[in-house]
Amino acid sequence: MTVTLSRRLAAVRGSAIRDLLTLTARPDVLSLAGGLPASDALPRERIAEAAARALTAPAAVQYSETAGVAGLREVVAAHESARIGRPVGPADVVVTSGSQQALDLVARALLDPGDPVVVEDPVYVGALQVLQAAGAEVHAVPVDEGGLRIDLLAERLAAGLRPRLVHTVASFHNPRGVTSGPERRRALVALAERYGFLVVEDDPYGLLAFDGAPPVPVAAYGDRVVRLGSASKVLAPALRVGWLVGPAPLTAAVERLKQSTDLCGSSLTQTITAELLADEPWFTAHLAGLRTANARRAAALTAALDTELGHRITRSTPTGGMFVWVDFTDGTDTTVLLPRAVERGVGFVPGSAFATDGGFASSARLCFATYPPAKLHEAVRRLARALT
Amino acid sequence: MTVTLSRRLAAVRGSAIRDLLTLTARPDVLSLAGGLPASDALPRERIAEAAARALTAPAAVQYSETAGVAGLREVVAAHESARIGRPVGPADVVVTSGSQQALDLVARALLDPGDPVVVEDPVYVGALQVLQAAGAEVHAVPVDEGGLRIDLLAERLAAGLRPRLVHTVASFHNPRGVTSGPERRRALVALAERYGFLVVEDDPYGLLAFDGAPPVPVAAYGDRVVRLGSASKVLAPALRVGWLVGPAPLTAAVERLKQSTDLCGSSLTQTITAELLADEPWFTAHLAGLRTANARRAAALTAALDTELGHRITRSTPTGGMFVWVDFTDGTDTTVLLPRAVERGVGFVPGSAFATDGGFASSARLCFATYPPAKLHEAVRRLARALT
Repeated sequence: MTVTLSRRLAAVRGSAIRDLLTLTARPDVLSLAGGLPASDALPRERIAEAAARALTAPAAVQYSETAGVAGLREVVAAHESARIGRPVGPADVVVTSGSQQALDLVARALLDPGDPVVVEDPVYVGALQVLQAAGAEVHAVPVDEGGLRIDLLAERLAAGLRPRLVHTVASFHNPRGVTSGPERRRALVALAERYGFLVVEDDPYGLLAFDGAPPVPVAAYGDRVVRLGSASKVLAPALRVGWLVGPAPLTAAVERLKQSTDLCGSSLTQTITAELLADEPWFTAHLAGLRTANARRAAALTAALDTELGHRITRSTPTGGMFVWVDFTDGTDTTVLLPRAVERGVGFVPGSAFATDGGFASSARLCFATYPPAKLHEAVRRLARALT
Repeated sequence: MTVTLSRRLAAVRGSAIRDLLTLTARPDVLSLAGGLPASDALPRERIAEAAARALTAPAAVQYSETAGVAGLREVVAAHESARIGRPVGPADVVVTSGSQQALDLVARALLDPGDPVVVEDPVYVGALQVLQAAGAEVHAVPVDEGGLRIDLLAERLAAGLRPRLVHTVASFHNPRGVTSGPERRRALVALAERYGFLVVEDDPYGLLAFDGAPPVPVAAYGDRVVRLGSASKVLAPALRVGWLVGPAPLTAAVERLKQSTDLCGSSLTQTITAELLADEPWFTAHLAGLRTANARRAAALTAALDTELGHRITRSTPTGGMFVWVDFTDGTDTTVLLPRAVERGVGFVPGSAFATDGGFASSARLCFATYPPAKLHEAVRRLARALT
């Protein structure tokens, strides 16, 4: 049967990463492609305890409030208040199905077809897809070792660009791995105020700073910022709990839109998440464990890269998050390399998958979080073999 | 701070029902307004067992496939095959966050702004909101005691209307309570084939037939039908599990769109749902219990209505689902009645909330599923007092 799809859908770029995940899901492939937390780092037993407790109350199986169960909004509000240094109330929080849904709802609440927006280049592909689906006119501003190039953004604004929003992963960038410093954060918020756009601060990785000191959020520098957070990387993806905190007219609009989008989230997984986030001694220890493991894995991956491929690459030095960004200085085309690498038993994402308009042909994103050190080293050895 | 919202959002009608739910959520109010299953009918202990079992495996806390965990798609495919009488495979199923998300994704995959669509009048408000958010041009066709007026739809089509889709709740209609017979179902599919539209068969209540014989789905009569199903009314809303089954190009598009919308659903709640739906002896007994309880409640509510208000109303006679539809023959304006009713301690939804373009001013939707018989009788007594 023929079914005519909407023109909007045709504007959404397919996710090369997603297709790759299928390719690299073979059990014999060590995949550094996904952004998956290590399964042994996910607190399955603690979740089981909280699930059992939640399910002693009828509310855990009923519909919940569209904006999220009260207990979760309270603990998220408390955490966010501490992070951004000014009071955030439960009414300022909307809980979503991962931060991806927050992004989708923000885009749909703010944007009409043709509205200009700014993304980073390389870009978090999930953001690009959401903005394309909303019909936005996407402008890209480069990211360097210090994060989003605010100087270039300022030039574009001075030349007349008037975006509705600027999307940024300022802390432990996906895919680039870098973190914006305080000066650039302050400058970004100043531009937002001057030109009237909103900053969408997509922050799933902030708490995964190896040194235990999460970067001060962009939202701490001003209020024209929507902060998106997630339990996926710090607790477990299957909870499907994310949230946004932002200006009241926007959170109200997002809540209204969420109502028609899926009525509400799961009171069961939200109640579990609330218990885990509110159990401070446990959550603090859990985060510390995650950070230590991740730091060790990042060190193992970068050491292996230096040993096996040091003569033909430059790479980022992770200080948190989940990714290492590699540039092949010998001109290796990573899209061509990938099938050979998968044949050798290792997966990654070619840089071109994150390009907004071509580029990054010799780059690759490698996730260090999924495997223990020995497997990471083996993965890099396989990659080196694929290059010979 | 001023935030300019999208024009699209302005087109979405706020849900009067939602505002009412807030109003009627006071503990002293017996609310017949919501479409909430009774809390004591939700299989909390069985869910807790399944949750504990699911959480013995790491997969239950990780990201899952966008289209849903394999085991759930298999059992849904088996159930759907039996319902519509032709083979449905797991690859034909996309699991969504309740059937509301299926509706939203179908609308976004199919519709561009200005595309005509047909809804029922009175309408399921969640469908109207989704279609408005997609920018559709909404045409309404009346529902009578026999369901959607296919004769009137045929007239509109003959006069030139060319909708992309027709949305129908053919079984135990929300809010009207009625069920379309086989002739109308067959005729609807014939029109879909003749005029090239898709039927969106929204079927959350089919399994809640009091006589244990779910109506033969519209999809059994032809293949230009997208079927939407849900675990919310037969298991528990908090699982946030719904699904769609439809033509392959559409399910592929919906899957792609879901990827950018929220990446995937919860592998935890999907694994729980799969276990419960696949446990045939348990699920069969559970459904039988639900049906018996619901039938008793419907009988109690209608008897109370006849006793207390018989002289001034006509009403539907439920044979399944969750709702009784009441028309006040004395011209009572139910929107004016509502605040007085809430003052007396009873809530309902005025008919006007379900009107696409005015109308139903003297009607009301009452949910019989939430309370046991004695409370339903008390609710109707309070309603009668509010009318004096």
